[in-house]
Amino acid sequence: MSTSRLETFADGVFAIAATLLILNVDAQIEGSEDLRHQLLHIWPSYVAYAVSFLTIGILWVQHHTFMEQIERTNRTFLFLSVGFLMGVAFIPFPTRLVAENIREEGAQAAAVAYGITLIVMAVMFNAVWLYAAVGRRLLKEDADPRVVSGITRSYLPGPWIYLVATIVAVVHPTAGVVLFAAIAIFYVAESSLFGRDEAPS
Amino acid sequence: MSTSRLETFADGVFAIAATLLILNVDAQIEGSEDLRHQLLHIWPSYVAYAVSFLTIGILWVQHHTFMEQIERTNRTFLFLSVGFLMGVAFIPFPTRLVAENIREEGAQAAAVAYGITLIVMAVMFNAVWLYAAVGRRLLKEDADPRVVSGITRSYLPGPWIYLVATIVAVVHPTAGVVLFAAIAIFYVAESSLFGRDEAPS
Amino acid sequence: MSTSRLETFADGVFAIAATLLILNVDAQIEGSEDLRHQLLHIWPSYVAYAVSFLTIGILWVQHHTFMEQIERTNRTFLFLSVGFLMGVAFIPFPTRLVAENIREEGAQAAAVAYGITLIVMAVMFNAVWLYAAVGRRLLKEDADPRVVSGITRSYLPGPWIYLVATIVAVVHPTAGVVLFAAIAIFYVAESSLFGRDEAPS
Amino acid sequence: MSTSRLETFADGVFAIAATLLILNVDAQIEGSEDLRHQLLHIWPSYVAYAVSFLTIGILWVQHHTFMEQIERTNRTFLFLSVGFLMGVAFIPFPTRLVAENIREEGAQAAAVAYGITLIVMAVMFNAVWLYAAVGRRLLKEDADPRVVSGITRSYLPGPWIYLVATIVAVVHPTAGVVLFAAIAIFYVAESSLFGRDEAPS
Repeated sequence: MSTSRLETFADGVFAIAATLLILNVDAQIEGSEDLRHQLLHIWPSYVAYAVSFLTIGILWVQHHTFMEQIERTNRTFLFLSVGFLMGVAFIPFPTRLVAENIREEGAQAAAVAYGITLIVMAVMFNAVWLYAAVGRRLLKEDADPRVVSGITRSYLPGPWIYLVATIVAVVHPTAGVVLFAAIAIFYVAESSLFGRDEAPS
Repeated sequence: MSTSRLETFADGVFAIAATLLILNVDAQIEGSEDLRHQLLHIWPSYVAYAVSFLTIGILWVQHHTFMEQIERTNRTFLFLSVGFLMGVAFIPFPTRLVAENIREEGAQAAAVAYGITLIVMAVMFNAVWLYAAVGRRLLKEDADPRVVSGITRSYLPGPWIYLVATIVAVVHPTAGVVLFAAIAIFYVAESSLFGRDEAPS
Repeated sequence: MSTSRLETFADGVFAIAATLLILNVDAQIEGSEDLRHQLLHIWPSYVAYAVSFLTIGILWVQHHTFMEQIERTNRTFLFLSVGFLMGVAFIPFPTRLVAENIREEGAQAAAVAYGITLIVMAVMFNAVWLYAAVGRRLLKEDADPRVVSGITRSYLPGPWIYLVATIVAVVHPTAGVVLFAAIAIFYVAESSLFGRDEAPS
Repeated sequence: MSTSRLETFADGVFAIAATLLILNVDAQIEGSEDLRHQLLHIWPSYVAYAVSFLTIGILWVQHHTFMEQIERTNRTFLFLSVGFLMGVAFIPFPTRLVAENIREEGAQAAAVAYGITLIVMAVMFNAVWLYAAVGRRLLKEDADPRVVSGITRSYLPGPWIYLVATIVAVVHPTAGVVLFAAIAIFYVAESSLFGRDEAPS
């Protein structure tokens, strides 16, 4: 019934998915010819690495935050969590697609695949949290209702924000990708700078 | 004698095996030509990813459940656990075979390899649990006999169910693979929906 | 000063090194032609996977056992542990060499590389343990001297046993590889069957 | 607010980044021809593996050391930690570049890429620590001011040392790489040998 093994498993998936991202950068270097030029040319790989690592880092922090409110688990909650982690572990794949194709013909397909992954993942994230929070099903007895509804309010827009960015990516792939980056950076800036230091984290 | 390091190691193997599955999807994309078509064409990879991730997730939940009943470990138990985890860590390999070959000539070999992996893994899983449970060898003093025999009853059919699915896969590979997916989905649905919320997990 | 983060890090390296072994099996399948034949033909990969997974599992159990005796860490102990884990994480590489070359011209080089890896790793393992145990430098106050000297006695032969197997591998690679497998299996059988159930583990 | 999940996530990234380094060695072996010669020829891969594994091990020990002084986390601290771990997880990429190119035309580009990665990572490391330590923002109440300022003094030179080594690498790539190795070895020797056994670790 305790939440500690879920946290170990989840932290493992977060850490591995984030660390595997470097394999995508690695795969862009072909042979040894003109290495300096190659290293400069693959700059979208570095950006994609940073954005996806940061996105996974944000998910980890958010997971961390909401697990603080949760007292116990049950089967449904564990399987919803597995579904959410399935989305997290998927992120390295569209990350490589974007890094490899953003300057090519396949930019649209890659950016949309990235967006769909984030939408599905954000929907699952909401499902996990709402399952635990609705009717305070799995919450700690002393979980502050304002904190709980604050978490709910901050997660609900996630899928819609990613949906908008994905629609932008259909029309203009590069603009969509810039939006994905901007969402991550804005989230970090906003939650770090504006009075959240006191928030449970 | 404590079980905590076994859980850390096991959770690590579960998390890594599940997260490595994405490399199989990744490997299906060749170059950048007609990316949109490629992304649609490799749909069996997504299904295989989801089914194997879910199967590993189920194993993790089940491992979680039975470790709750266990007080201490010994050498034999640890080595049986290593054997079981050897099966879990093997799953990404036949998953890729199925994803790559289900529409090709090699469908039968791939589906049977997948089935054999699951059979071996399920046999090892039973061996681990039965070693701990028979004569209450490693169980907690207060482990409820009904919970213990409930766990035993729910694990024993595992190898047989996978054996049947594997035999089906010999005759009709696609039907076998559909069965592997159905087994995972049925398990999640059954254990989530039918009054298991109160079960220790 | 506590040992818990060392255990988390070590368990991570053990779990990842063991789980990465499957990538070696994966790499043996080339394309989709005559998959059934390929799957049978690469049987040395399965054996190599099992032997290396088991070897890493044994190291994990042994690490588990001796950490039970240890009260605290210091810098030297942590860096010796890093050196030992460097050996553990190296194992997947010679494992693939053996799997790929045991029936080829390169069998000798592969088997010797495997042996040297195990020798270096076993030497480091002894260094870690002896550093902690000599003069009871880092041991728990209540560590039983008989258990401590029992651990020392059981680790000291490790490098020599692997040295003998490596010398055999120089003369006859396949015999050497059979020895590596036999050492792992013998260890598991011996420590599981002969009255070790009461030992701390 | 606790630091335990940060430690689990960080230990995961350290362990995975270190263990993935072996894939770089693996990738240097092409086919099975003249395996013995190949294994000797790729010696820079072994050196690169050892130096990067040791560097990551040192970072892990240092992270371990300073987390001992920290009482709680907040969002900014968590995101700075994510940024630092982004640098750690990047290390396998320039490690492979150096291993592959140190005897080729691309030696300079590879060594400089390695150096820039270490500079960025060391800057992030200082940012994480200084954010926690300045004004004792996140420190334990009983954190010894001398230990705290000792940690600060030992981290501040890091980016400058790596900057010097990187400048050397621009002029003479091999000398730069020797410097990167020497820095790691010197750190281990110094902190192990000179009276640090009593230091918290």
